[in-house]
Amino acid sequence: MNYLSLTPEELKIEKEKAEREYRTHCTRGLSLDLSRGKPAADQLALSMPMLTEQADEFRAEAGTDCRNYGILEGLPEMRRLFSEITGIPAANILACGNASLNLMYDSVARAMLYGVVGSPRPWGREETVKFLCPVPGYDRHFRICESLGIDMISVEMNENGPDMDTVEELVKDPAVKGIWCVPKYSNPSGITYSDDVVTRLAAMETAAPDFRIFWDNAYVIHDLYNETDPLADIFALCKQHGHEDRVFYFTSTSKVTFPGAGVAMMAASDANLKQILPILGTQTIGFDKLNQLRHVRFLKNAENTAAIMRGHAACIRPKFEAMLDILEKELGELGIAKWTKPNGGYFISLDLPNGCAKRVYELAKAAGVTLTPAGATYPYGRDVRDHNLRLAPTFAKLNEIQDATAVLCCAVRLAAAEKLLSDRA
Amino acid sequence: MNYLSLTPEELKIEKEKAEREYRTHCTRGLSLDLSRGKPAADQLALSMPMLTEQADEFRAEAGTDCRNYGILEGLPEMRRLFSEITGIPAANILACGNASLNLMYDSVARAMLYGVVGSPRPWGREETVKFLCPVPGYDRHFRICESLGIDMISVEMNENGPDMDTVEELVKDPAVKGIWCVPKYSNPSGITYSDDVVTRLAAMETAAPDFRIFWDNAYVIHDLYNETDPLADIFALCKQHGHEDRVFYFTSTSKVTFPGAGVAMMAASDANLKQILPILGTQTIGFDKLNQLRHVRFLKNAENTAAIMRGHAACIRPKFEAMLDILEKELGELGIAKWTKPNGGYFISLDLPNGCAKRVYELAKAAGVTLTPAGATYPYGRDVRDHNLRLAPTFAKLNEIQDATAVLCCAVRLAAAEKLLSDRA
Repeated sequence: MNYLSLTPEELKIEKEKAEREYRTHCTRGLSLDLSRGKPAADQLALSMPMLTEQADEFRAEAGTDCRNYGILEGLPEMRRLFSEITGIPAANILACGNASLNLMYDSVARAMLYGVVGSPRPWGREETVKFLCPVPGYDRHFRICESLGIDMISVEMNENGPDMDTVEELVKDPAVKGIWCVPKYSNPSGITYSDDVVTRLAAMETAAPDFRIFWDNAYVIHDLYNETDPLADIFALCKQHGHEDRVFYFTSTSKVTFPGAGVAMMAASDANLKQILPILGTQTIGFDKLNQLRHVRFLKNAENTAAIMRGHAACIRPKFEAMLDILEKELGELGIAKWTKPNGGYFISLDLPNGCAKRVYELAKAAGVTLTPAGATYPYGRDVRDHNLRLAPTFAKLNEIQDATAVLCCAVRLAAAEKLLSDRA
Repeated sequence: MNYLSLTPEELKIEKEKAEREYRTHCTRGLSLDLSRGKPAADQLALSMPMLTEQADEFRAEAGTDCRNYGILEGLPEMRRLFSEITGIPAANILACGNASLNLMYDSVARAMLYGVVGSPRPWGREETVKFLCPVPGYDRHFRICESLGIDMISVEMNENGPDMDTVEELVKDPAVKGIWCVPKYSNPSGITYSDDVVTRLAAMETAAPDFRIFWDNAYVIHDLYNETDPLADIFALCKQHGHEDRVFYFTSTSKVTFPGAGVAMMAASDANLKQILPILGTQTIGFDKLNQLRHVRFLKNAENTAAIMRGHAACIRPKFEAMLDILEKELGELGIAKWTKPNGGYFISLDLPNGCAKRVYELAKAAGVTLTPAGATYPYGRDVRDHNLRLAPTFAKLNEIQDATAVLCCAVRLAAAEKLLSDRA
């Protein structure tokens, strides 16, 4: 059965069926949350040895007392580990505090206050600053721009990443100073940028002499399966195309060890770091080196870190698969929903008929299932087509994921039937 | 003997004596550092149980899993502990990351980008923003202003704090938006602001509607003796005088537990927090709650924290006293130097004849003793009288402090004799 080919009478029957089912869900007193990409307790347990094993260790390999002040760039061994994981030279990496979001916000704020390498003036002195925002995308990126008064221009994502024809056209505007990218297992679509997209981002000519790619590689090693989606090396490609200052690269251990107490990193070219470090050194004497030491002693190297990531995959893969199974079973043939089947990351992106996302969000909420608010995946929280929802199947327990997805699917059927009927009326 | 009453011939003899002594020091191959206010290893050892005892604890008192995301304001129990220590209501306190300097920089940067409560516009949109800088003061405060393009106006410190007649005059200029204060055991003079000074700061009329006191109470409980220097409650006084939004209050556990891995706090009025929190929530999802939990479990309450601080005092008091003894013995009667005798904090401030500070710094350096650079205690690193040096007697070992102070005193005698002779020539 495909909803789109039903007669109004048949649709009405489907709607009533969905309503009855929905009322039953509402009586169950559910309180489930699919809203944020948080690891669950079994994942956090994987990293507990980090807190307990040789907890009194405070000497870094060079003899540094990690309890005391100093080492602005972060512990050399932590920078080296990030280098192994990302392929970026350790000299271009800073190991920092507990949140890459903080590094991203600070990087944009710094650009507003001081400009970046190549800026004619601080971005805050420009009449307008614009960022390209591939959509659907990460709400917290968009909030940074909104907070700092940066205009956002949506660019549609396709299965290879942002639509590069559009990007290349838009960067001819010198007010366009940046683009947000979650290049691997993208939030929320789960897709990984193709080599062609990464190469074009690195190679393209931009009218702004100080254009920056904010490369949030949050899910760099966050595979669900043994195979990884290959991602081209933006850092090397930018250099190769003579644009080595173009990329600000971020990642963290937030979803490797602990979301609230991980280690975040930023990487940038020599010239960028030369500009950034004196400002960073005005902002802080140094980040928490004890936590960096804890991390590097626990994670050891890229290979051991990959083994830990397989532990995470074992925890969350069944949840992803359960959600995908139910979506397929409940909505697969109805012609009213499309969703992504990611190989990693933390999200599934669900596309609905236009005008249905808010309704589904509200229906789910009233039945006790919290979703990420409709619109959150778009700049200013405005999905003009009101069609996209982000699903986060990691934090809840497996049976909760199943219950919540069933409610969601029922809400989708009900909302879609309502919409199709009203469209035809 | 007082250098000032010596004949040129007598002075010359003193100078030659100092030169001989100095040459002997230079042959000793010393490598000593009195430059930064860092706790020594025996102090850091006091807090090691924090890392090892129940290292696997991750539940806060409300059941929060501290490993995961969330709680922007910091753990309630950590805010409560800071409240006990400072007397400020917990609701006005944020428990944050590892560095109060970071909170101070961010607070000024935020004011530049967004303004503060009461600002007609962001400070960055003003033609000029000026800060009052009590001198001698803390170099890192001054660097924040310099980095962000804020003009600094020096205000002399006296034994009660900044000269309030001057302050009250200067704040009639609406471009004067702030003042830096280290109100207790001030960096570097060690003095504590009198009740009158604190009250006048809270009560004074300022032309700027958005004037802020940056109250860096870094040494809030950092007494050297059982007696503490009493400090009036700026937070309560500002409220009492109808200026409750005036103060941004900072402190941290950097010199209670670990300088590199402590917990910093910021306190501000309800209205200030209402403006700040949405911006902070754009910058980060939350600070390291595991480290906050570690702290509150170790420090427990204000009383237990005071006991730990007595342990710190026992470590560093002999170093302060050794330095003061040598200064007194070597320079006490010569009429060429004055220094502070603090009851707490991390520094001794040394005043020399005008034009001698750089020379003493260079002489000490050449003999293997690193001091904080001359001028560092003044905005832009410019001590126009070239007369002040900051001494930090905590990090080095006791015998090193003794050696270094002896070298310093010799350098002071040599530089002063040179200066007096050249002044008379």
